[in-house]
Amino acid sequence: MYKVKVYITLRESVLDPQGAAVQQSLHSLTYNEVSDVRVGKYVELTIKDTDRDLDQLVKEMCEKLLANTVIEAYRYDVEEVITQ
Amino acid sequence: MYKVKVYITLRESVLDPQGAAVQQSLHSLTYNEVSDVRVGKYVELTIKDTDRDLDQLVKEMCEKLLANTVIEAYRYDVEEVITQ
Repeated sequence: MYKVKVYITLRESVLDPQGAAVQQSLHSLTYNEVSDVRVGKYVELTIKDTDRDLDQLVKEMCEKLLANTVIEAYRYDVEEVITQ
Repeated sequence: MYKVKVYITLRESVLDPQGAAVQQSLHSLTYNEVSDVRVGKYVELTIKDTDRDLDQLVKEMCEKLLANTVIEAYRYDVEEVITQ
């Protein structure tokens, strides 16, 4: 079994209005040290043992469903879970 | 300058309908290996050098604004950025 953690972020060149709103709210809460905020998505997938290539599988899932690759970038970590 | 990466996830005991919907979509795309999906948020904060305690600062921001601690858990990594 595998735990795959996928991080999806807006590409650098894409405006992030949600991040700007969060930043403004943090400033009104007196956290003026915060100079930039970017908001993304975090997806945890639990994947059963499979014969298919895991890297290939996760990339396909990200590109077909999880991320919009025109405006978003993704990266992921794979952890193997040993069950006894 | 610091880059703080905050990961916000629903607590284990809380139902995740968005995750269930993503899982169903992955199954219809033939990715039947996926046995669980949890969807969370990922926030990247850029914080200027400050006299305040960074850990304290990030915890406060998470608890006051970024996470709803009743149903969500958060964790974060801090990276120091050296500018030359």
